[in-house]
Amino acid sequence: MYHHLKQLMYTVHIGVPDPRFGNMLLEQFGGANGELAAAMQYSVQGLNCDDPERKDLLMDIGTEELSHLEVVGTLARMHLKPLKSNRNAAFADPLIAVAGGGGVNLFNSMGNAWTADYLKITGELDVDLRNNIAAEARAKIVYERLIDFTDDSGTIDALQFLMTREITHMKAFTAALESLGKPAFSVGAIPPTPGLVDEYFNDSTGIGDRGEKDERGPWNEGGDWNMVTAPAFQELISAAAGTRMPDSQKGNGSTGPKGASKRRRD
Amino acid sequence: MYHHLKQLMYTVHIGVPDPRFGNMLLEQFGGANGELAAAMQYSVQGLNCDDPERKDLLMDIGTEELSHLEVVGTLARMHLKPLKSNRNAAFADPLIAVAGGGGVNLFNSMGNAWTADYLKITGELDVDLRNNIAAEARAKIVYERLIDFTDDSGTIDALQFLMTREITHMKAFTAALESLGKPAFSVGAIPPTPGLVDEYFNDSTGIGDRGEKDERGPWNEGGDWNMVTAPAFQELISAAAGTRMPDSQKGNGSTGPKGASKRRRD
Amino acid sequence: MYHHLKQLMYTVHIGVPDPRFGNMLLEQFGGANGELAAAMQYSVQGLNCDDPERKDLLMDIGTEELSHLEVVGTLARMHLKPLKSNRNAAFADPLIAVAGGGGVNLFNSMGNAWTADYLKITGELDVDLRNNIAAEARAKIVYERLIDFTDDSGTIDALQFLMTREITHMKAFTAALESLGKPAFSVGAIPPTPGLVDEYFNDSTGIGDRGEKDERGPWNEGGDWNMVTAPAFQELISAAAGTRMPDSQKGNGSTGPKGASKRRRD
Amino acid sequence: MYHHLKQLMYTVHIGVPDPRFGNMLLEQFGGANGELAAAMQYSVQGLNCDDPERKDLLMDIGTEELSHLEVVGTLARMHLKPLKSNRNAAFADPLIAVAGGGGVNLFNSMGNAWTADYLKITGELDVDLRNNIAAEARAKIVYERLIDFTDDSGTIDALQFLMTREITHMKAFTAALESLGKPAFSVGAIPPTPGLVDEYFNDSTGIGDRGEKDERGPWNEGGDWNMVTAPAFQELISAAAGTRMPDSQKGNGSTGPKGASKRRRD
Amino acid sequence: MYHHLKQLMYTVHIGVPDPRFGNMLLEQFGGANGELAAAMQYSVQGLNCDDPERKDLLMDIGTEELSHLEVVGTLARMHLKPLKSNRNAAFADPLIAVAGGGGVNLFNSMGNAWTADYLKITGELDVDLRNNIAAEARAKIVYERLIDFTDDSGTIDALQFLMTREITHMKAFTAALESLGKPAFSVGAIPPTPGLVDEYFNDSTGIGDRGEKDERGPWNEGGDWNMVTAPAFQELISAAAGTRMPDSQKGNGSTGPKGASKRRRD
Amino acid sequence: MYHHLKQLMYTVHIGVPDPRFGNMLLEQFGGANGELAAAMQYSVQGLNCDDPERKDLLMDIGTEELSHLEVVGTLARMHLKPLKSNRNAAFADPLIAVAGGGGVNLFNSMGNAWTADYLKITGELDVDLRNNIAAEARAKIVYERLIDFTDDSGTIDALQFLMTREITHMKAFTAALESLGKPAFSVGAIPPTPGLVDEYFNDSTGIGDRGEKDERGPWNEGGDWNMVTAPAFQELISAAAGTRMPDSQKGNGSTGPKGASKRRRD
Repeated sequence: MYHHLKQLMYTVHIGVPDPRFGNMLLEQFGGANGELAAAMQYSVQGLNCDDPERKDLLMDIGTEELSHLEVVGTLARMHLKPLKSNRNAAFADPLIAVAGGGGVNLFNSMGNAWTADYLKITGELDVDLRNNIAAEARAKIVYERLIDFTDDSGTIDALQFLMTREITHMKAFTAALESLGKPAFSVGAIPPTPGLVDEYFNDSTGIGDRGEKDERGPWNEGGDWNMVTAPAFQELISAAAGTRMPDSQKGNGSTGPKGASKRRRD
Repeated sequence: MYHHLKQLMYTVHIGVPDPRFGNMLLEQFGGANGELAAAMQYSVQGLNCDDPERKDLLMDIGTEELSHLEVVGTLARMHLKPLKSNRNAAFADPLIAVAGGGGVNLFNSMGNAWTADYLKITGELDVDLRNNIAAEARAKIVYERLIDFTDDSGTIDALQFLMTREITHMKAFTAALESLGKPAFSVGAIPPTPGLVDEYFNDSTGIGDRGEKDERGPWNEGGDWNMVTAPAFQELISAAAGTRMPDSQKGNGSTGPKGASKRRRD
Repeated sequence: MYHHLKQLMYTVHIGVPDPRFGNMLLEQFGGANGELAAAMQYSVQGLNCDDPERKDLLMDIGTEELSHLEVVGTLARMHLKPLKSNRNAAFADPLIAVAGGGGVNLFNSMGNAWTADYLKITGELDVDLRNNIAAEARAKIVYERLIDFTDDSGTIDALQFLMTREITHMKAFTAALESLGKPAFSVGAIPPTPGLVDEYFNDSTGIGDRGEKDERGPWNEGGDWNMVTAPAFQELISAAAGTRMPDSQKGNGSTGPKGASKRRRD
Repeated sequence: MYHHLKQLMYTVHIGVPDPRFGNMLLEQFGGANGELAAAMQYSVQGLNCDDPERKDLLMDIGTEELSHLEVVGTLARMHLKPLKSNRNAAFADPLIAVAGGGGVNLFNSMGNAWTADYLKITGELDVDLRNNIAAEARAKIVYERLIDFTDDSGTIDALQFLMTREITHMKAFTAALESLGKPAFSVGAIPPTPGLVDEYFNDSTGIGDRGEKDERGPWNEGGDWNMVTAPAFQELISAAAGTRMPDSQKGNGSTGPKGASKRRRD
Repeated sequence: MYHHLKQLMYTVHIGVPDPRFGNMLLEQFGGANGELAAAMQYSVQGLNCDDPERKDLLMDIGTEELSHLEVVGTLARMHLKPLKSNRNAAFADPLIAVAGGGGVNLFNSMGNAWTADYLKITGELDVDLRNNIAAEARAKIVYERLIDFTDDSGTIDALQFLMTREITHMKAFTAALESLGKPAFSVGAIPPTPGLVDEYFNDSTGIGDRGEKDERGPWNEGGDWNMVTAPAFQELISAAAGTRMPDSQKGNGSTGPKGASKRRRD
Repeated sequence: MYHHLKQLMYTVHIGVPDPRFGNMLLEQFGGANGELAAAMQYSVQGLNCDDPERKDLLMDIGTEELSHLEVVGTLARMHLKPLKSNRNAAFADPLIAVAGGGGVNLFNSMGNAWTADYLKITGELDVDLRNNIAAEARAKIVYERLIDFTDDSGTIDALQFLMTREITHMKAFTAALESLGKPAFSVGAIPPTPGLVDEYFNDSTGIGDRGEKDERGPWNEGGDWNMVTAPAFQELISAAAGTRMPDSQKGNGSTGPKGASKRRRD
């Protein structure tokens, strides 16, 4: 059950309204990474959650995001006020000016209606926590960019508050994920195929127009990594030569790990 | 520049086609967490990426996901073949039967057209890598669930291959993120407000119908955490008592950290 | 600022879960006339509202709808529980079973993601109140239909509670509209063109395959109504006769009210 | 069966084309409250309608809206003509300029494709008539706002014609609703729960940053209204005091009407 | 200006209603290739068209499609009637049963709302006529498939009528395109690059799992065709050999037509 | 299986970046007629195709379009670079600036997310080839219009390359369609109703405001054409005269071909 308090979570003051910035702010009101997306993602995850401890966490933060939605909507509306009287501003934002009478709606900065397609809800707690960590990182960087596009101190203060809270949430979700105590890269119950899971497929090769080339790093060398030179590559060479590779060389070719040999049966 | 090899990355064999399962498989073809979403998310991130090393990683995996799209589409089509002649199957999947002639399309299992709203692309490399780690976790759990809904061994083999590769990618993206060497919870350039960033807002309180109650864990106690009893809470008590709180107690009430006291100016 | 209480606004008990009914319930969770649509429509109208009295009304009811969303989501989840283990149920709801792990999401009964395109928000208070009256009427009839499709008494009780509240809201919005004291059919500031406003255009004529024919009622006769026999009609007759009508008979033909004569200038 | 007459329902003349205004006009062509939405909403309702009298009404007005669609599309196209040659205009409307070759399409002013999600069609005649009354009110206010954003007299004349017709339709739909002779707030067949239906839940309380406070009016006092101080409120107080309320005080607390006491069973 | 005649363009009779088939029929009501799509595509093209002769054609057929929409909607509604009383039918079509009260709406067979994204409108007459020819071919095959999924003779008669008219329209649009007298493959005003336009890029090579191989036909041999062995191919071979190709062999390799040599500048 | 080569299919050089043009270019990246739409339409058709020869064609061109997607995305990104630092540019493209960090995403020029609703895939080979011919014609004209909106020679070179390739594909698809050897206007297996198929319904009549009138051409006269004066027309005349037509004259009236007489049974 929800209750609303008329006071905003963060009191908003602005100087001269800037309708272009107000429109930009809508990214965090009805946009893909905005506050409604956050509020709904966490609250619906919480509704589905069978883990009582992390369910509480999801409801706490989901509810806070509703309060953020109200703050950012109030801020956007203040900046969009001139749309009611200023023709140039209205022509730049015709949907808000004509259909919305100058008020905000759950659209992003390009007038796209908010959609639940933005949400990432899987019903698998550790996966959902990862979705949330990523969501908070996105929200943080969007607030930071918004701060860079305004000079209004009152606006910056409010955005700084909201931005900070995203890091708070990111910390909380990370702690909640770690406290589950799952082994690294363990998702669900079915283990990946040994061998195959350590093969790195080099599927993009050659030299780019700007000198791009194959790169190595901890994501494809060292540890258990087994580099597989482009799977499609040897086929092409063989095809060019008018021959087919022997079956034993298919797929991952000569690297032949157990996972690879197991996975192709002609 | 792309090249296509007619051989599938994983050769697909199935037993008796199961159109209901074929339809379910479309989640990984044209669904929110499916292979097109993965292919496009990584490839477009790669196109935008200024870090030559991780750009190569994004292109490698983005390209591999295109090959996965082909495998899962081929598998779905095999299972959906009966739609061409079987009325009951067709009535259960009318869009595929009547508009698609029994073939697959970039829809999910409910006939929703694939949309780029599924993608999480921010142009901030560490954030995008987090998006990708979460995306791979989602894809993994969806493949696992699909495996649980079929008994066909050929189908299971193919899904096991695809599922394994998602863990491979999750490992690679995690290594790429760690290799950036960024401090924990550091996203972008603007630091969060000290103090405020450590406040946990307890925004969901009380006792639930099934005994749910406030919970504590490493996400809200220990370390730097500062628990703030529901921000809206004290207002309500005051309102009930017919009084307003003194200004100094507003917001986070008596906890009064610097961040909190700074963020509200009446 | 929002606060969440763990107790539901209406405690939900169900007997044997019925996943087909659970899916149907999603119409009121993430559907076009459902609780999220109501919550968002009123809350965003409230955020935009400059009339302090009716703003309070909009926030009161917008907040209550959030609590309803939680109730109906909880109810749906209870009915959908068998999706986790029952293959037939899962094949009927593949999106929920495979992508959602058996949990609810902000989709309607056909798996369409909720969209803000459902909302009717104009920033004109009397118009928004009419939007809300219509929205409550829709929600009421949908709850009634849902009640007709289940025999579970606990489910019926919860739906009866929710359905009743929609009538409560319909009454409140109607009183709020009437209390504005606007003359009938007065919307905005520009008056309609006299004369023209009273013309009823009979644009559908003839005898239908099932005997449909032109009908009269208080919507086109009596009062100030001026019936205009199909505007396009006389042209056709003239064209058939190889002649053009005199200009004076164009448009609304011989009825020639001031509004009509003014509106066409050749 | 439909027939088209080449003459517009209202002959359109404009002065100097204004592409920015032409774009704005698209709100009434392919927008959420525009003429296609009106035409489709009423025509499909008419197709479904079993009441022969009001079915005729729905078909009459549904058909007239098709003629309006043609008028507003013609008007928009005239204003958008410069897009074919003027680069600045084209960059402001790239979708129309590049994909549409300067012609109109069924998009709104922000390039969002028209969607049937805009429609409100329930198959319940009185509810649909309420939907239509609200739709006409929306269309009226949008035309009025458009008139405010142009100085071109020919354009204003056409918009005044279209705006007037919306009031005509609003009158007709209202008369049709009233002529059904249904009691006030009677929707469908299942009555609301007595007592509960008269409870007003005060779910938004406190003092806002701009002095917003709880308000009273005919929507929550007088008549049968029974004001319920925030349902979630007393729980919070109890929680703060470390006690749970007695069961008898739950929900609506001491107001205890029959409806309320019936609706919660712990 | 439009007029509606109550008589259907084709009188519809059905035997026993079949709700599953009624749902399937919605593909031609609110589906991607259905009658609303056809009506809107041609009518909006007509509204934009500057060629008076083909504008008339577009309006004629656009209007006829509106009449078809009414026929197919009436047919679907007849088949969907049992949804009002039959629970099994309702559970299979919950959106229609619960939100629509058993009536049709502008959705396809999977409940997806019709969207103007289905339309192909370019404002280039010859291109639009090609769009229409393709649209009519799609509509024809969908009607044929629908006929294959029913045994009801009245339904088949109506579908045969509608299907036949699509071929009529296909003939008319083809004649209209040919009468423009444009040279083959001439679209717009800018000629393609000579040489390059005749190069066929063999971008999919190798031997497939089911024996798929490179194929030749009039689409890549004979006439002016110049077969280019996979552009990416030679790079791969070079890369494998640890060498880069000489610049002169890049892109299309040794075939070196003027178009190809011109298009790459390092 | 796919492979990616780091070199672009066409090396891209631009002069001064033009963000407005960069935004416009997105029509061919994530727009309705853009390269992703082409790549997906042909590749999915190919995946479904049972004709080995034309399947190869579909895969060849589908793969080439992926390479085009990369070229046009690279070009757009170059032009959009100033969004990162220039506020005016950012305010004009807020979605790209704030959510995308200046990078491209699969949106069109108005920020609409790419959707598979753009695709035309029927599983009927001749119909799909017609869809593809129309798609290539659309892509060609969009590239031509883009060329008209820029003066940058490097950009024009790249667009000329891409535009030329669309004509190449149009030629190839046309040859593939013709090589099927199907009779003209033969789609699928069920023949249209003789007689009826040759009737042209003149459904738009009269004299327009700008002198539009009924037109004749090879699409409605000559050959087998049988002109039917507006089907709804004679009814109207009869209705006006207060009489109903004899049954024998209904529908197509006196023209009475077999198809017509067969199709109406009262």
